[in-house]
Amino acid sequence: MRFTHETLPQRVVFAAGGSPAAVATEVGALGGTKVMLIASDREKELADPIAKEIPAVLRHEEVVMHVPVEVAERARRAATDAGADILVSVGGGSTTGLAKAVAMTTGLPIVAVPTTYAGSEATNVWGLTEGETKTTGVDDKVLPASVVYDAALLTTLPGGMTVASGLNAMAHCVDSMWGPRADPIDRALAQEGIHALAAGLPTVAVDSTSVQGIEQTLYGAYLAAVAFASAGSGMHHKICHVLGGMFNLPHAQTHAVVLPYVLAFNAPHAPEAEARIAQALGTDCGTRTASAGLAALRKVLGAPRALRDYGMPEDGIAKALGPIMKAVPANNPTPVTEENLTALLKAAWAGEPIS
Amino acid sequence: MRFTHETLPQRVVFAAGGSPAAVATEVGALGGTKVMLIASDREKELADPIAKEIPAVLRHEEVVMHVPVEVAERARRAATDAGADILVSVGGGSTTGLAKAVAMTTGLPIVAVPTTYAGSEATNVWGLTEGETKTTGVDDKVLPASVVYDAALLTTLPGGMTVASGLNAMAHCVDSMWGPRADPIDRALAQEGIHALAAGLPTVAVDSTSVQGIEQTLYGAYLAAVAFASAGSGMHHKICHVLGGMFNLPHAQTHAVVLPYVLAFNAPHAPEAEARIAQALGTDCGTRTASAGLAALRKVLGAPRALRDYGMPEDGIAKALGPIMKAVPANNPTPVTEENLTALLKAAWAGEPIS
Repeated sequence: MRFTHETLPQRVVFAAGGSPAAVATEVGALGGTKVMLIASDREKELADPIAKEIPAVLRHEEVVMHVPVEVAERARRAATDAGADILVSVGGGSTTGLAKAVAMTTGLPIVAVPTTYAGSEATNVWGLTEGETKTTGVDDKVLPASVVYDAALLTTLPGGMTVASGLNAMAHCVDSMWGPRADPIDRALAQEGIHALAAGLPTVAVDSTSVQGIEQTLYGAYLAAVAFASAGSGMHHKICHVLGGMFNLPHAQTHAVVLPYVLAFNAPHAPEAEARIAQALGTDCGTRTASAGLAALRKVLGAPRALRDYGMPEDGIAKALGPIMKAVPANNPTPVTEENLTALLKAAWAGEPIS
Repeated sequence: MRFTHETLPQRVVFAAGGSPAAVATEVGALGGTKVMLIASDREKELADPIAKEIPAVLRHEEVVMHVPVEVAERARRAATDAGADILVSVGGGSTTGLAKAVAMTTGLPIVAVPTTYAGSEATNVWGLTEGETKTTGVDDKVLPASVVYDAALLTTLPGGMTVASGLNAMAHCVDSMWGPRADPIDRALAQEGIHALAAGLPTVAVDSTSVQGIEQTLYGAYLAAVAFASAGSGMHHKICHVLGGMFNLPHAQTHAVVLPYVLAFNAPHAPEAEARIAQALGTDCGTRTASAGLAALRKVLGAPRALRDYGMPEDGIAKALGPIMKAVPANNPTPVTEENLTALLKAAWAGEPIS
């Protein structure tokens, strides 16, 4: 047990249906009197009731995916011109990302109101793109001071999108068990996250407007982001990153397909992780494994099964092998060889059942 | 699921046998160049190897229980006179407490190196005494920036003391399940803490020098403090506080005796807490309850059983009833009545088995 864990300061508010009042409280607690409210045109309706409760001096709607530098620059200038002393973001990862870009240079505090399960609001990671190049970095100034989770804002998301995002969050949790900086605190938070996701997702899959299902999923996605930001990318994310980049695969589906194979691959050499995941999935009693628990959940959710269904060519397996071998962290529980990695990729490509 | 959870910023380092290097790293990371090292005469031997690795401009040895104001004032003056830019405390709750008192007025960052299981290092709570009056308060300035847990520093603590402190930490965890501000994050951290304490304490009870047992217990005590500071005092601590003050009972033993009765009292109306505690104690599979798990652990540890063994008079039950009724938080899972509280106190007084 040798580790260094850094806990980042943040207030997290769960207030289903109550975001306008909760955001006003957080803005007040942070001493904000001139709010720059960042919300894209698409999130206007969600942001309007919040806008009414806070002293907004500026509403900024130019939100672009991956936060292009010129978009960030315009937002920074707008913040300064308006004399804003606090940022409120209402939206998904791109909206939170733009608020972070503004905070990075202005030092303004952020109150983030997520409307997806992206998780960016719970980390100190920023990202900017310049042309084709994405740069990411870590800066405590970009960590939102407060996050207000209002499940009612996510009731219009299609259920399928929630399930895809939720399985993505599940992958963050599972990979947090053995990421390069994974420690017991990360594992405990990830375990709690898996439990919440396993409770919330089946409900949302059936009824995408279930506030109870959504808030469990939000809670799980929040914990997933906290754990993953601390533990760092493990084998699962390295594989998905290589495959996604090489074959232009859809993000969420790639994660959903690959996860059970990585879990089965690492579980035999990661007994603590196995036990935690099984416990979180409710399969620790008796003879069912973590993998059996994940398989059962995936079945309920109708999760994607094979990479070939999403356009990965069969000869891509050999092509991806080298880059993945290089990327997998040295501390991965099961040592990676050409043989066992090829077998994993073949199985994920074909959607073979986990033995 | 409506709650506000505040996560406090802190780096936590677990480095058994490695505190001198780890403290030096933390001091450096915080930009410290002039260290005020606070350690009582009793902790001199533990502090010496650390002193060698850091730029200490002052060693302060006057540590007094409950941090009398005049002791705090002298330490504050010493810090200023020496031009210290960082505080390193090596010791138990009183030593950490003195460092907090200095940080409170000087704003200096603290690197805390605990040598007991007190947990003060993980909270933003300070305490000072003036004559007979103890004042406590909350101030983020007093939260240590870094904590270095070195199990090797606790190998000289008697096993009995570790068990008593560990059961005290266990009480913090259990009460965090239903404290006035308890939220799912507190419960998850408390669950992890119970698991660690249940793993560590039986080892330390048999071999008080077991580094593995000590570090598990330290990890559990750390989580207990984090969860409890966030959740606030629940029924268990209110009972112990009233009884301890009224009958001058020994702190650790009172907690150890009362805990199983409060767990049995609340469990029927706190199914989530019951499930979490049972899971943490490994008694969730099959028919064993959280109470059965705690009873089994207490048996292994030879925990204290009856308040009458520690000097509480039988007629004290009626005397304590009113003050306890007033103190128990309104959100306690099982509503408290004169009848059921009397029954609880009678059982704890006599050491009756939990039915």
